[in-house]
Amino acid sequence: MECEEKQALTKVMFDEAEQLTEELIALRRQFHQYPEVGWLEFYTTGKIIEYLKKYEIPFRYGKEIANPQFFWGREEEQIALAKEEAKELGISNEILEEMEGITGVEAVITAKKEGKVTVLRFDMDGLPEEEARNEDRVPVKKHFCSKHEGCMHACGHDGHMAMGLILARILYENRDRLSGEIRIVFQPAEEGVRGGKSFATGGVLDHADYFLSGHLGMDNKSGELVLGTYGFLATTKLDVTFLGVSAHAGASPETGKNALLCACHAVMALQTLCQDSRGVSRINVGVMKAGSGRNVIADRAFLQLETRGETTEIEQDLYEKAIACIKGSAMMYGCECQFAIKGGASEAKSDEGVIKRAKQALIQSYLWTEGQEEKEMDIHTLYEKKKFKGSEDVTYFMKEVQKEGGQALYLGIGANITAPHHNTQFDFDEKALLTGVKVYLAILIELMMQEH
Amino acid sequence: MECEEKQALTKVMFDEAEQLTEELIALRRQFHQYPEVGWLEFYTTGKIIEYLKKYEIPFRYGKEIANPQFFWGREEEQIALAKEEAKELGISNEILEEMEGITGVEAVITAKKEGKVTVLRFDMDGLPEEEARNEDRVPVKKHFCSKHEGCMHACGHDGHMAMGLILARILYENRDRLSGEIRIVFQPAEEGVRGGKSFATGGVLDHADYFLSGHLGMDNKSGELVLGTYGFLATTKLDVTFLGVSAHAGASPETGKNALLCACHAVMALQTLCQDSRGVSRINVGVMKAGSGRNVIADRAFLQLETRGETTEIEQDLYEKAIACIKGSAMMYGCECQFAIKGGASEAKSDEGVIKRAKQALIQSYLWTEGQEEKEMDIHTLYEKKKFKGSEDVTYFMKEVQKEGGQALYLGIGANITAPHHNTQFDFDEKALLTGVKVYLAILIELMMQEH
Amino acid sequence: MECEEKQALTKVMFDEAEQLTEELIALRRQFHQYPEVGWLEFYTTGKIIEYLKKYEIPFRYGKEIANPQFFWGREEEQIALAKEEAKELGISNEILEEMEGITGVEAVITAKKEGKVTVLRFDMDGLPEEEARNEDRVPVKKHFCSKHEGCMHACGHDGHMAMGLILARILYENRDRLSGEIRIVFQPAEEGVRGGKSFATGGVLDHADYFLSGHLGMDNKSGELVLGTYGFLATTKLDVTFLGVSAHAGASPETGKNALLCACHAVMALQTLCQDSRGVSRINVGVMKAGSGRNVIADRAFLQLETRGETTEIEQDLYEKAIACIKGSAMMYGCECQFAIKGGASEAKSDEGVIKRAKQALIQSYLWTEGQEEKEMDIHTLYEKKKFKGSEDVTYFMKEVQKEGGQALYLGIGANITAPHHNTQFDFDEKALLTGVKVYLAILIELMMQEH
Amino acid sequence: MECEEKQALTKVMFDEAEQLTEELIALRRQFHQYPEVGWLEFYTTGKIIEYLKKYEIPFRYGKEIANPQFFWGREEEQIALAKEEAKELGISNEILEEMEGITGVEAVITAKKEGKVTVLRFDMDGLPEEEARNEDRVPVKKHFCSKHEGCMHACGHDGHMAMGLILARILYENRDRLSGEIRIVFQPAEEGVRGGKSFATGGVLDHADYFLSGHLGMDNKSGELVLGTYGFLATTKLDVTFLGVSAHAGASPETGKNALLCACHAVMALQTLCQDSRGVSRINVGVMKAGSGRNVIADRAFLQLETRGETTEIEQDLYEKAIACIKGSAMMYGCECQFAIKGGASEAKSDEGVIKRAKQALIQSYLWTEGQEEKEMDIHTLYEKKKFKGSEDVTYFMKEVQKEGGQALYLGIGANITAPHHNTQFDFDEKALLTGVKVYLAILIELMMQEH
Repeated sequence: MECEEKQALTKVMFDEAEQLTEELIALRRQFHQYPEVGWLEFYTTGKIIEYLKKYEIPFRYGKEIANPQFFWGREEEQIALAKEEAKELGISNEILEEMEGITGVEAVITAKKEGKVTVLRFDMDGLPEEEARNEDRVPVKKHFCSKHEGCMHACGHDGHMAMGLILARILYENRDRLSGEIRIVFQPAEEGVRGGKSFATGGVLDHADYFLSGHLGMDNKSGELVLGTYGFLATTKLDVTFLGVSAHAGASPETGKNALLCACHAVMALQTLCQDSRGVSRINVGVMKAGSGRNVIADRAFLQLETRGETTEIEQDLYEKAIACIKGSAMMYGCECQFAIKGGASEAKSDEGVIKRAKQALIQSYLWTEGQEEKEMDIHTLYEKKKFKGSEDVTYFMKEVQKEGGQALYLGIGANITAPHHNTQFDFDEKALLTGVKVYLAILIELMMQEH
Repeated sequence: MECEEKQALTKVMFDEAEQLTEELIALRRQFHQYPEVGWLEFYTTGKIIEYLKKYEIPFRYGKEIANPQFFWGREEEQIALAKEEAKELGISNEILEEMEGITGVEAVITAKKEGKVTVLRFDMDGLPEEEARNEDRVPVKKHFCSKHEGCMHACGHDGHMAMGLILARILYENRDRLSGEIRIVFQPAEEGVRGGKSFATGGVLDHADYFLSGHLGMDNKSGELVLGTYGFLATTKLDVTFLGVSAHAGASPETGKNALLCACHAVMALQTLCQDSRGVSRINVGVMKAGSGRNVIADRAFLQLETRGETTEIEQDLYEKAIACIKGSAMMYGCECQFAIKGGASEAKSDEGVIKRAKQALIQSYLWTEGQEEKEMDIHTLYEKKKFKGSEDVTYFMKEVQKEGGQALYLGIGANITAPHHNTQFDFDEKALLTGVKVYLAILIELMMQEH
Repeated sequence: MECEEKQALTKVMFDEAEQLTEELIALRRQFHQYPEVGWLEFYTTGKIIEYLKKYEIPFRYGKEIANPQFFWGREEEQIALAKEEAKELGISNEILEEMEGITGVEAVITAKKEGKVTVLRFDMDGLPEEEARNEDRVPVKKHFCSKHEGCMHACGHDGHMAMGLILARILYENRDRLSGEIRIVFQPAEEGVRGGKSFATGGVLDHADYFLSGHLGMDNKSGELVLGTYGFLATTKLDVTFLGVSAHAGASPETGKNALLCACHAVMALQTLCQDSRGVSRINVGVMKAGSGRNVIADRAFLQLETRGETTEIEQDLYEKAIACIKGSAMMYGCECQFAIKGGASEAKSDEGVIKRAKQALIQSYLWTEGQEEKEMDIHTLYEKKKFKGSEDVTYFMKEVQKEGGQALYLGIGANITAPHHNTQFDFDEKALLTGVKVYLAILIELMMQEH
Repeated sequence: MECEEKQALTKVMFDEAEQLTEELIALRRQFHQYPEVGWLEFYTTGKIIEYLKKYEIPFRYGKEIANPQFFWGREEEQIALAKEEAKELGISNEILEEMEGITGVEAVITAKKEGKVTVLRFDMDGLPEEEARNEDRVPVKKHFCSKHEGCMHACGHDGHMAMGLILARILYENRDRLSGEIRIVFQPAEEGVRGGKSFATGGVLDHADYFLSGHLGMDNKSGELVLGTYGFLATTKLDVTFLGVSAHAGASPETGKNALLCACHAVMALQTLCQDSRGVSRINVGVMKAGSGRNVIADRAFLQLETRGETTEIEQDLYEKAIACIKGSAMMYGCECQFAIKGGASEAKSDEGVIKRAKQALIQSYLWTEGQEEKEMDIHTLYEKKKFKGSEDVTYFMKEVQKEGGQALYLGIGANITAPHHNTQFDFDEKALLTGVKVYLAILIELMMQEH
């Protein structure tokens, strides 16, 4: 495709996006009102499906797109309740049944012409927090605060999904002018990095050439854009239970096997593991609950911990050492230990090639102009690389695509925020949503409309 | 008083006790139906007061008899609720107000003639357990199971109080034939050894010559009696909170002060303290709760622990070493530590002199005959001394009386039991109640009716 | 044998013993001058052999009487040197060769008539201490201080051996008047309880009916005698080495396996193991040596520890828990651990039957008279039982004899001492030696001269 | 000074240096034969003084140039012996007396014209290692192996001093053509980073404008040169002694205060301190020695440890946390703790300005030509910055000069080596010495001969 053709197509889609701005924001606000925590996004999934059905966009969901081997951190006992609530909010029985207990959806847009396969991923879940209700907050003033007590979209995933749906609608409507296939994946349970591995290995990446995802806000202001975030920390989230034998602490202490003491040993050993010349390594035992009574030798101790590393190699070495420390502690006191992985993420890097082409697409679509810093522009500041602080399970998608020869790009889509992510005062500048949609469109056209 | 006089008086009172057997058992069953945990015995206290009022027995309660310095392990936030429940069960507003938030009562029986002062102590509280409801249990068959959900008299204190009230009634009715003063103390919160010190130092022991108390069941079968239980372990029940500073475990670990890690250090140090050539010493950290999230450096850790010792000296040395370990741990990681004593008991021994006189009283009252083991007798087996396994806060009363020159005796009143104390299947042979009443009467007459 | 016969025989031997008093003391002083630490008693063994040869008393030594499976705590590299020193002091090459590197001797006295087999055991080793040289000490005044630098008989084993040799001479000379067999065992390496198990299982106890041993001094003054010491603590002496991997602590810490840290974990776990309701239990890690340089992750850590228990059961349970703690610690950090048992002792009790007969023998031989406390008598105070503080590997002999149906007796032979055992000022009242010889003789005659 | 003048002066001095090559190597070999460990370089200091006297170069030594506040890691009891050995090797009594027990010298070369003050620093000490004697080593073949048993120049300080002396001779001879002042400091005890702080604060840096130092070898081959080494880790070397109370572990454990256990706690706490988001942080307890006997509660435990940090701030925060951990551990068990700083270094960076001018000097003096990689040249590869692995106490000089407005440069002077530094097989390519001398000369001329 010639450059002019691309520019023409881009213009058409940008116009359409602008016309859909109101709907874009309305979608975001709807999701904002009904936040659901990871793996329980039944209402959210239902609403996405309803939207896709309305515009006749093909989609897949349930067991077809998720790998049950990595259902990390699912609280199975909450699922029935969450489905019930979704039903009460109007999601049809049929949709709920077909989900087979698994939240998340994949829209699939097949163009007329053959071509590249690009996968976009948007995350869906809220956080178990009570949204702040002070009058100066936009969600309060505009009446779209959370209606789910104790749950809040405090990270911007509501905005991610709104962008994903508008993109699906625009791309589907223009499918005859495109080539290849675009899959728009809505992934559950990003918080706690629980859902990523299941969806990255569940089939949605088969034969993919490109993978795009991104995050609103973070350290980036409205008008800033990061192509190629890096520095994701690889991580594993682990729960450990030590099982000992209880005994009366005064009368027969020698018959007990002290799980609490065992857990203390484990903690102290674990916290010594973080000296590594290869790069950052982190461990934290954040929660410990042990014992049933003051005068009883504890027969049970529960730990929540996480390992992190600047590279997957560092993190995995650390993880293995951690497991040895835990098993050794158990051995010390004749206790058993049980492990449950509750989440994980790997390191990942965006590909240089796709960063370069994305930059070119921004220029050609007039989203960004080198050297110009006009504040009125969609994008006034472009970073080619910027460090991400923390962990994201999008990394599994990136590594998976790259393993099969594809390329990945992670975007930082600037948006002014009112408080740090995960804070109950969090809100973001909704103007960033339209910019985000345009950025995805421009990059998609550049990647997929290439000459053969 | 001549021996025959004593025997005559004993006979009168024994007859009366036998006639009150039904009431004795009824009282026990009433208390059994409305168990209340320590410091919250508002209904129980109200019922005792009602009984004393009915028979015009003088009594004191509230701040007059409790030392607020040792209100160990009171859950203040539960008090309003417990009072409300007592009111709903019919305890008058007036009584409840006069309690001043403090459960427990002291009946005071002053004889015509001057004489010795003897204090009897009965404990009142139930346990936070749900009573078993299997059909084979007597409380189920006879319909006197606990009506307080999650609470149960599983230690026999219901029986103790029933004996105390019947004793009060008989002694008060016979006060003209007695000399001296008898105080019958109903002490709250024995479980967790929380109430003893407050009541032992609250005034009820002023100028006391003798102190009597005892326990139903334990290792003793119906028909067995122990004079002079010994081997109570001195103990302190301690809650510790470590306060640190939270931080994001991945992003800025160096800014945190890890209270969980601090607590683990403390636990490991504490558990090393129990080698003592002077006798038994025990420590147990039975409960630990720490941290708020996997990826957050814990800013709070809570421990429940206890120290025990064969002597108060051993226990206090151990306690001091424990405090040093805890403070040292806090210092290590720059955390604060807060201590709250939640209970305590000392060692104590019954006095030889009073044991001998008690034995004589049993013989003279025909409660026990040397060498005879007829199973039909009230007492067929007598132990002069027997080891108590565990801790009891009656020890504070014993030590206090002895400090002032008085004498103390602790009885093991045999009673067949259906399951170990504190077990939800626990019940005891109610026939032991009458035996218990007689034993107290015989010993009281012997101690108080002496020649001048 | 009739009572009078026994008394006659006793008298003969007592007379002989009195005539040998000077030799008895001379022997003790000779041994005192040439103390040797455990397993290195080559000179001492040589001198015993020379004495036995001189009086033509049969004996066995070397591999015939020691079980190499329990050569605990032998410092093999010192043996050549110790033999060299013995040679320089005049022990013949032939004797030294025949020892086969194993110190210790057994004199065997076979009577004309058949009868019971009695084994006596005396320990031989000195301590690695420098004897005090202050003028007020008898060994200084009488010129028999240690001539081995850094080594001293500070426990009385020199006296034990002197008694053993004089007993051998007297018994051998009177063998025609005795029945049965008497074996007098000189056991090496009692200090650190290293040699006992090897000799108790090396053959000297085969078919034994009685076993006698004892100790000079301890808590017993001259003129006191204890029949039936009890309360020996079972013990195991263990050396542990952790092997890790060294690494530069600044440049590549992640490649190391920290043996020092591993050992610290082990220590902390070990020190938590001593709460046991069955009786006294003790653990101590007394020595730790780890690491080679400040900036190197330690690849080696060495611990010396001991477990003790009031019963062998307690001690063995503790030992097993200790091993688990050590192995668990090693597992934690990927280290290896190596164990070396360096000594051991069990609990043991003297037999009631033999205590009674020994008491009778003391009476019949006029060594002790009931109720009489004349200070001039050999024995003025008799204890039938008395607690031993600490551990002794004589216990293996006692248990072994008892296992095969024989009986054992351990004596406390009173002797005034100038300082506690193992102190460099230690010395004992040499008059106790003659008393000791007589006590052994009287008991031996009683046990062996019985009617058939 | 004009560029040509500088080039002319450079040429003169380079020629002189070349003529002195034999002496340069002879000096190095002389020092190599008589290595002395830190603070004990009496022979070495004497030889330097003799050389300076021979060429009449002024110098200062003893208390005039060292700050006694930071005499870290001096083994005072070795000093008399070391002086004795120096005397035997021919150093005069007078020189030895004037040293006042302090090794190290400063040569002071004052030019005719006023100008800048530049300080050069060379380190002097050997290592406590036994030099390898295999025939293939140059020091063996050329007969200049260490004649001090157990001591070796295994880091190249012998070469540093040789360069320093030749520089002193050349610069002094040409002092009339120079301006300003050059101080050549020979610093003791660099190994273990013990002497740096004392000399950096002892007066030699007063009013200094420039500071130059460097190291032979490291990661740099012959012909390579690094201007501006960075990444020095700040560090503190600390010895800790815990003092407890000993007790018999079996008989009276409760009377002891266990210093070994205390030290184990400290170790485990210390090893948890290294998670820091600001950069590299390291801690290592490399050595522990504790206790006197298996059955004695240890009253003494000794630790050698070090803290390191990518910045002084990180290291100092870590150090403070470490001190808290140690004090807290002591508090836990009622032990005392004693601290002794044994060494230290800070972070430091070379100044950009002086790096640029040094590069220019290399070009102008034809020591290095951009783009040319001819192996025959003195310098064929130039690095403007390169990371230093580890710690160096030269950093105190660099920071001190910079604090007063001066500039510092640390050089990596390439030299092929036969084994890693500190290895007993270590040796270096002596050709690098002449290159080193020339590099110092070129940079000195550039820095000091500037126009006014």
